[in-house]
Amino acid sequence: MSDTISIVGLGAMGTALANALIEAGKVTTVWNRTPSRADTLVARGARRAETAQEAIGTSDVIVLCLTDYTAVEAALRDAGPVLAGKTIVNLTNGRPDEVRAIASRLGGYGTLYLDGGIMATPPMIGTPHAFILYSGSADAFEGAKEQLAAFGQNHYLGEDPVLAAVNDLALLSAMYGLFGGYLHATALAGSVGVTATQFLPLVEPWLAAMMTALPDYAERIDSGDHARDVRSNLAMQSVAITNIVAASRSQGIDPAFMEPMERLAQKRLAAGFANDEVSGIIEAMRAK
Amino acid sequence: MSDTISIVGLGAMGTALANALIEAGKVTTVWNRTPSRADTLVARGARRAETAQEAIGTSDVIVLCLTDYTAVEAALRDAGPVLAGKTIVNLTNGRPDEVRAIASRLGGYGTLYLDGGIMATPPMIGTPHAFILYSGSADAFEGAKEQLAAFGQNHYLGEDPVLAAVNDLALLSAMYGLFGGYLHATALAGSVGVTATQFLPLVEPWLAAMMTALPDYAERIDSGDHARDVRSNLAMQSVAITNIVAASRSQGIDPAFMEPMERLAQKRLAAGFANDEVSGIIEAMRAK
Repeated sequence: MSDTISIVGLGAMGTALANALIEAGKVTTVWNRTPSRADTLVARGARRAETAQEAIGTSDVIVLCLTDYTAVEAALRDAGPVLAGKTIVNLTNGRPDEVRAIASRLGGYGTLYLDGGIMATPPMIGTPHAFILYSGSADAFEGAKEQLAAFGQNHYLGEDPVLAAVNDLALLSAMYGLFGGYLHATALAGSVGVTATQFLPLVEPWLAAMMTALPDYAERIDSGDHARDVRSNLAMQSVAITNIVAASRSQGIDPAFMEPMERLAQKRLAAGFANDEVSGIIEAMRAK
Repeated sequence: MSDTISIVGLGAMGTALANALIEAGKVTTVWNRTPSRADTLVARGARRAETAQEAIGTSDVIVLCLTDYTAVEAALRDAGPVLAGKTIVNLTNGRPDEVRAIASRLGGYGTLYLDGGIMATPPMIGTPHAFILYSGSADAFEGAKEQLAAFGQNHYLGEDPVLAAVNDLALLSAMYGLFGGYLHATALAGSVGVTATQFLPLVEPWLAAMMTALPDYAERIDSGDHARDVRSNLAMQSVAITNIVAASRSQGIDPAFMEPMERLAQKRLAAGFANDEVSGIIEAMRAK
């Protein structure tokens, strides 16, 4: 059980994390390259560290919430001796290769490394709507999870430190798909004079209904069987997709968000999968 | 108030529509080019028409549910004299230009024309989960709406006959965005050994949470103001999008579904909208 915790990096997200710890009554040390960003937190009861090294040396658990991995490198530089036995929880956004590099380097200092992906905006931190993905040292997670729960729901994914970052990017992909489709749909409806506010009560329940297809798709993806009990086959769907692209062009809307679905559907049709569910398109994404 | 109704076209969807009418106790006439497809419906109480012209002449309201507009043309050919005063409800999938052509032609016969888009799969017909978009003659909708309610929820969009088809394609666009994003996300998580079944309990609540952003986006789209009270600006989002595309490539996943968001985000950034919400991307889709 770790007792003390530091937040290194006080941007909007780091500040939200520190506030959540203070509200949960945790002994919290904070550090930021520009010290004035800590003032409000210190007034609320946080301890100010004068250097990143002090923030790391003072606490058992150190949460890094920085702009990028260059800032992570800078914060850890010269901190070598104080890193032994500490738990580093890195919530800085990054790519899988960056996570592997930092995890491997910290392993050399005898540091327990936990990587994380925050699936929330700063105002959501400390509410039940925030959830944070963690992966890496199971010992680190067990020791820090009660403190980390102040941020939101903990989701520990496993020992491979890269799991949190990849699942974070995967969830963001799902979000960008949703947003891209919504923007395309709203632009197309707008082309015949339907406002976004008028379109909303149609598109919201529709998307909620379409989300109920996902458990079936997940089963198909895991089994590789996209052909059993098909409700709407790729041949029919590709007619609709082609109609969407053609209608979008004639209505003056860039069909960009729909073109990948058209291209990948055609690729699957050409490969002989006309009677499959649309979930089979995932096979075309993995093919070289 | 129209009393009798015909279904022209008995594919999976036409058959489901006819079954819903029979269950609702409506006097239902059916016709299909291959007559045997009507046998089960006739056994359940439907009347069989020998020709499309007879199906049109027999009833006040005629629902067309055919493969495409070539089949619609064929069914209406030679039916000229019997079309006067009838209500044609065309539920055949089509593009806006096809809808305008058929609506204009039927107007010449003194026919009331209602176009429709079915937002449901055949098994959903007759349940509260099915909804059908209608547009065109308000008189036709008023006269037929009680019968049409047997199919599912009626949504009348206005007098312009093209509204239903465009809103139908728009809703499908939103669905394809959702599905494309989900498939990308699941493929990316799969690249580090997370199965689709394991990923589902992460992605489902995440997407449900992200859907709560849509009312705010709708307001921004209608007002054109994407810059007030921004929760996550395009500059930050575009870092994540670029990370997704790069990580997908390095994990062996075709980044196709994420590339349009990257390209359009870059276009908006280059135009000076770094501090806007992601909803502002709709402006780049409308630009020539």
